[in-house]
Amino acid sequence: MKTYYDCIPCLLRQTVEAMHMFVKDEGIQEKLIRFVLREIADMDLNETPPYMAGLIHRRIREVLHDTDPYKEIKEHFNQLALNMYENLHKQVEESADPFDTAVRIAIAGNIIDFGVRADIGPREVEETLLECLQRPIAFNASAELNHAILQADRILFLGDNAGEIVFDRLLIEQIPAQKVCYVVKAMPVINDAIMEDAVATGMTELVRVIDNGSDAPGTNFNLCSPQFIEEFHQADLIIAKGQANYETLNEVKNKDIFFLLKVKCPVIARDLGCDTGAVVLKSCCRKTV
Amino acid sequence: MKTYYDCIPCLLRQTVEAMHMFVKDEGIQEKLIRFVLREIADMDLNETPPYMAGLIHRRIREVLHDTDPYKEIKEHFNQLALNMYENLHKQVEESADPFDTAVRIAIAGNIIDFGVRADIGPREVEETLLECLQRPIAFNASAELNHAILQADRILFLGDNAGEIVFDRLLIEQIPAQKVCYVVKAMPVINDAIMEDAVATGMTELVRVIDNGSDAPGTNFNLCSPQFIEEFHQADLIIAKGQANYETLNEVKNKDIFFLLKVKCPVIARDLGCDTGAVVLKSCCRKTV
Repeated sequence: MKTYYDCIPCLLRQTVEAMHMFVKDEGIQEKLIRFVLREIADMDLNETPPYMAGLIHRRIREVLHDTDPYKEIKEHFNQLALNMYENLHKQVEESADPFDTAVRIAIAGNIIDFGVRADIGPREVEETLLECLQRPIAFNASAELNHAILQADRILFLGDNAGEIVFDRLLIEQIPAQKVCYVVKAMPVINDAIMEDAVATGMTELVRVIDNGSDAPGTNFNLCSPQFIEEFHQADLIIAKGQANYETLNEVKNKDIFFLLKVKCPVIARDLGCDTGAVVLKSCCRKTV
Repeated sequence: MKTYYDCIPCLLRQTVEAMHMFVKDEGIQEKLIRFVLREIADMDLNETPPYMAGLIHRRIREVLHDTDPYKEIKEHFNQLALNMYENLHKQVEESADPFDTAVRIAIAGNIIDFGVRADIGPREVEETLLECLQRPIAFNASAELNHAILQADRILFLGDNAGEIVFDRLLIEQIPAQKVCYVVKAMPVINDAIMEDAVATGMTELVRVIDNGSDAPGTNFNLCSPQFIEEFHQADLIIAKGQANYETLNEVKNKDIFFLLKVKCPVIARDLGCDTGAVVLKSCCRKTV
């Protein structure tokens, strides 16, 4: 998905929010915001919004001399989600349709996205869980995904955020472990999950986990490692979590991709053809496209 | 009030909203947004947000080759407000405290602000009226204003938007006409009232009306005419409507100014020390400061 004009105020809002959270020095604040304004003024609008967000957050880490400013936030949400895990696991097991319940919980976890809102707390997570368990899923491709999983040998599960990774575990537990490879970012960006989050939340004990070589949100092939791109090509099913994976992969052809996300912005809602707030499980399969 | 970092995404949102409303050519859209990004990247943040909004809208008018893109919107809201005038006039006359009621109606009119939101309609105006008539006024300086009006010989009433000007009439009718001079913008900017709005809504028949020489929202002395500045200095009471007048005049000393506004943004709410949405009548009097 290209960068729409409506994304530009939002990229600046993200910058200002992150700046308020981490940058205390006023001189550095001013330099940072002027840098981002100039970068966006010169950006190729055919690039995706996550590409630009990656660039912005790279700059934030540079000016802070901090490789991982969201580290504490990520640890906090991993722990919060781990504390919920047992109850959610029980809820999946006891439900009439464990696969559907696990899908809904995995999508609910996608609310833990500090790129979109910097004020997510336990209450938003609880409320989103309740909502996702009850609300109709937009483009509901749950049965289609279940079928695709049965058919597939190599499933690449593109993760999104720390905390959310625990909710993903519940869905991955519904899939034969040897089929699945879970993907994290290679380097920190916002609160996206990296390998240490996969270790901390037990994902590495459950399935094979690799990183995509990149420090940008979503899946920007230009920034990904050759090893990841090879895995992507060899996979016969992609499960992609979150807005940034949708924004960066929605135009990929000749690949069976299922997008699981909580829609948090009107631009993506318009692009998908649903409401802001929608709980989405959309299939972009080569057979059906 | 200086331009806070939080104002920057908002200035860009305003640009994008105005662009969607008026600029159809994609090439011009792109040039406009890149121009605004570069202007903000280089702007002196000690300038006020309305100064920057003035610059942005000047550029929008230039690229459109249209001196007044909001003309139809202004005419529409003048008419909408004129249609409400008789009932509101009756409501003031019949109320237990006509001055207080007129103050509340004048503040309610301030919702008609296309700088803040581009989707204002009759429903928002009706709802805001009801709210302003019932809700407590923040920093309620209504009695103080009433007293200051009695004492004053020369009152300068700084108007804000078209449509809103009709609501201002109801307050001005509570003041001896010979004391009041109503001020509009000299040239169009957003939906700010200009002389033709004062004529269309009967304000020119009620009191003396002048323009401030400027094409920017609020009251930027650097852009105002010497004649207006002289009037400002000679007035012994200033009644200033709307956010932009607050943003541009809140640091003026040695002048009795009463700010009447509906707070529509969190930055101004923080600066004032009230909630977003508050109905404000704040006195900044030299005697009390």
